[in-house]
Amino acid sequence: MDQPVNRFACRVYYEDTDMAGIVYYANYLKYIERARSDWVRSLGIDQNALRAQGTVFAVARIEADWKSPAHFDDLLEVLTTVQQTSGARVVLRQNVTRGGHLLFGATVTLVAMDIKGRATRLPAEFRRQIR
Amino acid sequence: MDQPVNRFACRVYYEDTDMAGIVYYANYLKYIERARSDWVRSLGIDQNALRAQGTVFAVARIEADWKSPAHFDDLLEVLTTVQQTSGARVVLRQNVTRGGHLLFGATVTLVAMDIKGRATRLPAEFRRQIR
Amino acid sequence: MDQPVNRFACRVYYEDTDMAGIVYYANYLKYIERARSDWVRSLGIDQNALRAQGTVFAVARIEADWKSPAHFDDLLEVLTTVQQTSGARVVLRQNVTRGGHLLFGATVTLVAMDIKGRATRLPAEFRRQIR
Amino acid sequence: MDQPVNRFACRVYYEDTDMAGIVYYANYLKYIERARSDWVRSLGIDQNALRAQGTVFAVARIEADWKSPAHFDDLLEVLTTVQQTSGARVVLRQNVTRGGHLLFGATVTLVAMDIKGRATRLPAEFRRQIR
Repeated sequence: MDQPVNRFACRVYYEDTDMAGIVYYANYLKYIERARSDWVRSLGIDQNALRAQGTVFAVARIEADWKSPAHFDDLLEVLTTVQQTSGARVVLRQNVTRGGHLLFGATVTLVAMDIKGRATRLPAEFRRQIR
Repeated sequence: MDQPVNRFACRVYYEDTDMAGIVYYANYLKYIERARSDWVRSLGIDQNALRAQGTVFAVARIEADWKSPAHFDDLLEVLTTVQQTSGARVVLRQNVTRGGHLLFGATVTLVAMDIKGRATRLPAEFRRQIR
Repeated sequence: MDQPVNRFACRVYYEDTDMAGIVYYANYLKYIERARSDWVRSLGIDQNALRAQGTVFAVARIEADWKSPAHFDDLLEVLTTVQQTSGARVVLRQNVTRGGHLLFGATVTLVAMDIKGRATRLPAEFRRQIR
Repeated sequence: MDQPVNRFACRVYYEDTDMAGIVYYANYLKYIERARSDWVRSLGIDQNALRAQGTVFAVARIEADWKSPAHFDDLLEVLTTVQQTSGARVVLRQNVTRGGHLLFGATVTLVAMDIKGRATRLPAEFRRQIR
């Protein structure tokens, strides 16, 4: 598999858990979104500026598997890999791991959108960076 | 005590609980915000329109007591009472109850703000309604 | 398509939105979880009792598409359909709609688990109900 | 004022914002809870072990002021100060700052509780550490 473009560390707090004593299932989507924001920031791209220029990224599709639960105080790592890019789309693989062990994995399709919500070409800055 | 201006029913779901098996403490602030939105809607005030006209409500202060925990599947009721209004401010009392029993109570100070975040007079429509 | 086994109404509140002015993508997973809990309750099954007996449901896989955004104050409806059941698994289709228009759709695989996190047969009560 | 016992850095992500373009008000309670967990961990106290021994901390009261909004991508710092301790209680001051500027401040009363939810003496380990 390709090299991760980003490794993002993430601690599990009380807010993340549910009464089953484990991380609530929807919260993995928060973790991988934090990792995407961290990645984009690390590319020197300012999402605030991008939005001001009229481009945002939206998640269009996710295929996700919950493999093993995370618990309070766990230190997780989100590994992000670029699988594919085309005109307006990027497909990422994002794995949430603990000590190298896979807990959650998702294939995430992002689409660049203009203010009216129409698909638009990936920002030039972004295409250059991920090539 | 004054009559509640709003009674709002609210079910506890998985997302609301934490690993202690009870509702996570910050989520009571979500419940009382839902109740405020429900109340404002019931007054015939459209928060989307209000915002488009440049006025939003912001929470400036809360004094809150967590008395007794709520659990998964509980059916809660949020009772909202107006305690005080002045130029730009409304002070509410919001109690979260289950079967008439108080679980959480908060005194909430709201401020009407313009787009630049400056305090502004309460919208006329709102003042008329809560008198 | 099969008849929905559950229709669940759900209002969009401030807590659900993000700075893009729309519902944050992970929150659709909360909405469909509320709908599943509502459905299970409507079957006369008490998840608290089920858990006390040692069985919980966990989401194993989701394939989801975000089609169109939801906004503050929208009244949404989650429609849940049973697509397939087998030993320990149930596959549901859960669509989040507004005025009959599809905003988000997910195919959700649930697994019944025992306390140790091992797949276990679907509870008898549940199998009887969904047949 | 007393020296902070903990300084906790915290980035604002999409999940934290609402449609007003700022951090949703209840999320500051998440930030200060993360800071408390970080602080307790830094004292060498394992909350998982503490819970297994039958002691948990619960928030009993908060007085909080929202002074100025935080935005997406902001890097915040939570400063925690111990204001008072007694039998079962600790009173903390927790300020959320950005670049030294106060955005949110809360006075938080924590109570040590046993499994039955009764107030209990602060754990010895904890009392020793915060003296």
